[in-house]
Amino acid sequence: MEHGKETLNHQRSFEVVRESMHSVISMNKTEVGDSVLNEFLEGYCSLSFENRRKLLLTLAKEYDLNRAQVRELIKQYLGLQPPGSEAQSGGVADEGFLSTFYRIERNLRHSLKPVYETLFERLNTHPEGLKFLTIIRADILSILTEGNIASLRALDSYLKEKLTTWLSPAALELHQITWDDPASLLEKIVFYEAVHPISNLIDLKRRLGVGRRCFGYFHSAIPREPLIFIEVALLKNIAETIQEVLWDNPPIAESEATCALFYSISSTQPGLAGINLGKFLIKRVITLVKIDMPHISVFATLSPIPGFMQWLLSKLASQSKLAKAEDISLSPADRSGLTFYENILEPEEERALIDSSGDLASGKSGMEIMLNLLTPTTHEWTNSDKLLSALKPPLMRLCARYLLQEKKRGKALDSVANFHLQNGAMVQRINWMADQSEKGLNQSAGIMVNYVYRPENIEEYAQLYFSKGHIHSSYDVKRYIQPVLENESKDSLL
Amino acid sequence: MEHGKETLNHQRSFEVVRESMHSVISMNKTEVGDSVLNEFLEGYCSLSFENRRKLLLTLAKEYDLNRAQVRELIKQYLGLQPPGSEAQSGGVADEGFLSTFYRIERNLRHSLKPVYETLFERLNTHPEGLKFLTIIRADILSILTEGNIASLRALDSYLKEKLTTWLSPAALELHQITWDDPASLLEKIVFYEAVHPISNLIDLKRRLGVGRRCFGYFHSAIPREPLIFIEVALLKNIAETIQEVLWDNPPIAESEATCALFYSISSTQPGLAGINLGKFLIKRVITLVKIDMPHISVFATLSPIPGFMQWLLSKLASQSKLAKAEDISLSPADRSGLTFYENILEPEEERALIDSSGDLASGKSGMEIMLNLLTPTTHEWTNSDKLLSALKPPLMRLCARYLLQEKKRGKALDSVANFHLQNGAMVQRINWMADQSEKGLNQSAGIMVNYVYRPENIEEYAQLYFSKGHIHSSYDVKRYIQPVLENESKDSLL
Repeated sequence: MEHGKETLNHQRSFEVVRESMHSVISMNKTEVGDSVLNEFLEGYCSLSFENRRKLLLTLAKEYDLNRAQVRELIKQYLGLQPPGSEAQSGGVADEGFLSTFYRIERNLRHSLKPVYETLFERLNTHPEGLKFLTIIRADILSILTEGNIASLRALDSYLKEKLTTWLSPAALELHQITWDDPASLLEKIVFYEAVHPISNLIDLKRRLGVGRRCFGYFHSAIPREPLIFIEVALLKNIAETIQEVLWDNPPIAESEATCALFYSISSTQPGLAGINLGKFLIKRVITLVKIDMPHISVFATLSPIPGFMQWLLSKLASQSKLAKAEDISLSPADRSGLTFYENILEPEEERALIDSSGDLASGKSGMEIMLNLLTPTTHEWTNSDKLLSALKPPLMRLCARYLLQEKKRGKALDSVANFHLQNGAMVQRINWMADQSEKGLNQSAGIMVNYVYRPENIEEYAQLYFSKGHIHSSYDVKRYIQPVLENESKDSLL
Repeated sequence: MEHGKETLNHQRSFEVVRESMHSVISMNKTEVGDSVLNEFLEGYCSLSFENRRKLLLTLAKEYDLNRAQVRELIKQYLGLQPPGSEAQSGGVADEGFLSTFYRIERNLRHSLKPVYETLFERLNTHPEGLKFLTIIRADILSILTEGNIASLRALDSYLKEKLTTWLSPAALELHQITWDDPASLLEKIVFYEAVHPISNLIDLKRRLGVGRRCFGYFHSAIPREPLIFIEVALLKNIAETIQEVLWDNPPIAESEATCALFYSISSTQPGLAGINLGKFLIKRVITLVKIDMPHISVFATLSPIPGFMQWLLSKLASQSKLAKAEDISLSPADRSGLTFYENILEPEEERALIDSSGDLASGKSGMEIMLNLLTPTTHEWTNSDKLLSALKPPLMRLCARYLLQEKKRGKALDSVANFHLQNGAMVQRINWMADQSEKGLNQSAGIMVNYVYRPENIEEYAQLYFSKGHIHSSYDVKRYIQPVLENESKDSLL
């Protein structure tokens, strides 16, 4: 009984919000005041996730295009001679005809805009509209993870286009976040820090203090909350471990710094996924630091490698399985199925692993041992010097391979690598035991990477990565995979 | 010889800028760095007006659409069954088909976007791009005043759409301008004040001091310069003359104020013509003032009537001419050509004018006398009490008529009236000798008007004006034209 009533209430509130959405879209321009928009905003936020889903599907399917009108305008459009002879002739009559042509072309263009654009545009005029649109998009993205729905996917790609325009760098304000900022803002920094969690006030204060900088991109319609922020350490050299950046005392005098190290960059709005604000943020921060501190000439990151262990463990698992199959000495005919088999370990790495594993992990091959050593999240291997020295060479080598050679649709497989490479950075160095936190060990066996931004090469590198998938890297990183390099893929590296 | 060389240089610099414009448009996304954009920005600014004209025409004509591609996509699009049965079926195969449909629809939509959109979008990513785009638009508008060019008109309407999106209220920041603001900003206020020029520092300081407010809309890409600003006086009653607002001392205590009077609103960017930022500015200022000072309940303007004299003088001239023609006692047949003839003066107004004009103006009819009195920019009529009292009744009455009844395409003929009415204001009162400055006398014989914004009616009034051309006005103003009202156009007033 109670349950039935609740369902009824849900149904009713859905209808009310649907009605107010319809008003926002269909009212004429001057009628749409803040009160109508407020009603919809508040209504939407009060809906259950299931009802939001229903509403967004309604929006995607019933408020897209008036396709009868599109077809009518296409007919008119195809009936007109396009301009081109304009330059030659150009009398008054021609201008009259051209005006008609451009008008119909514009009408066709407008008719191809989905009706839901009106909703987005009108919400964007509301003081809280932009923030609200990012909430709507976050909802859409989480609906789409449940399964693809073509109409909703189309709506999402349209909304993403609009948000990209509204969040153009011209509309964003760069602000240096300091200890003098309101607590309500600093609290957001603590909350959103996604790379190296901020544990307490002293930690936060240090990140905003001497030898450190924090910059955020703000939009006036999303006040007191950065859309993305970056943390910078001013150092003598490119740091190798996150410990020295976050914890080692004291920071050096800023006048002695020669390196600006970006050690954390965090987006705050799930609804802005896929909109690269970081690229512009990094470029502007580099420009700013260069002006403020001409003695700083190196711009580097100390970055996580979030996908390394996932890739490595799945590679080790599949290859160990193939290796086992090979053991049962197949006939040559069956072996043809094994062309994907590859011992990803070098012979001396394999020997060292077998020699040192002892009781901690068993396995028939080096790869199986490695898999068994690295899988447990207790990370016991980090407590044994013997295992550390046996694991370091293959882990470093395979990490270099993962960063420089493993790709998906021509782009680096690792999301952070792809981010910095598309922004025009190069891979400078990989660092052993650079992040020994739980997260660091889980993601990348504690390895971290320095990307370097050379202001004079940023555009060139970004372009080569974009057009040809070229990943620039230092000799230091390349030498880990030199043998492979010489055989196979020299050509994919520069 | 020198002249030939100069022409050659002009030609060469045009080619260079044209080339850099082409680069900005045709490079792939990641190649377009700030350096390429800078080159174009600087190049464009260095061009002569003639070369800018040539360049913008090139942009409009050679970088609009790839119409062969549009036709190809139209063909593909027409070959597909539009969705609609989606709700009923909805299997995986259908989702696949729908994805294709939406993709082609999106491709068609994108192909209908002019190529020059890329230039606008890319410029907008540059820190100075938005400001630059307003400069380009100002150039386009001044080219179009020379004569209509359909392709350039189409480009202008496209650029205006883009600017409107980028300057949505969500991207604008409201800032109260005070005496503590940088001199470089205050200087802009002095420079751009378009309604009541600021004569000196004391004048400026007063407008920012006790009992006064000044608010501006800022965009982060156009720093230290408001796009539009409004000046407010806090008063006991709605002021009748601009003198008391600008000059009379001292201002009242703010706690005693019950009225916020908007006495000046100025746009600063000619390139943003036609983009109504004032509407949002006024609404936000009203909201802000209501929160800050709950004792203020009246929101009014003291506004110029910039088109009144121009309308009146041309009306008087044409009607005097018609009156003269009538004098020559035409045959009834010929009189039919005079259906437009109307004595815009009442009999007693005409008598008073003839009685009082004396040496200052001659004329066969009241209208001719009035025309001759009002035409000279010496405004000698303002020095004679007799003339003042003879002119006041017809001027006030005709001014009320001008504001409430004279329209163009259903909108108030007067630009300032149209601005406030479309924002949802009503006509409250017209004030005799309210602005005795040269400009005030030239524009409106010194008459000014109070528009009132009633927060609770703003949306309703705006809507009725938009949809039916209804102009709300107080009885005070309506009674000037009551006789006319009763006969003809009662129905166009509410």
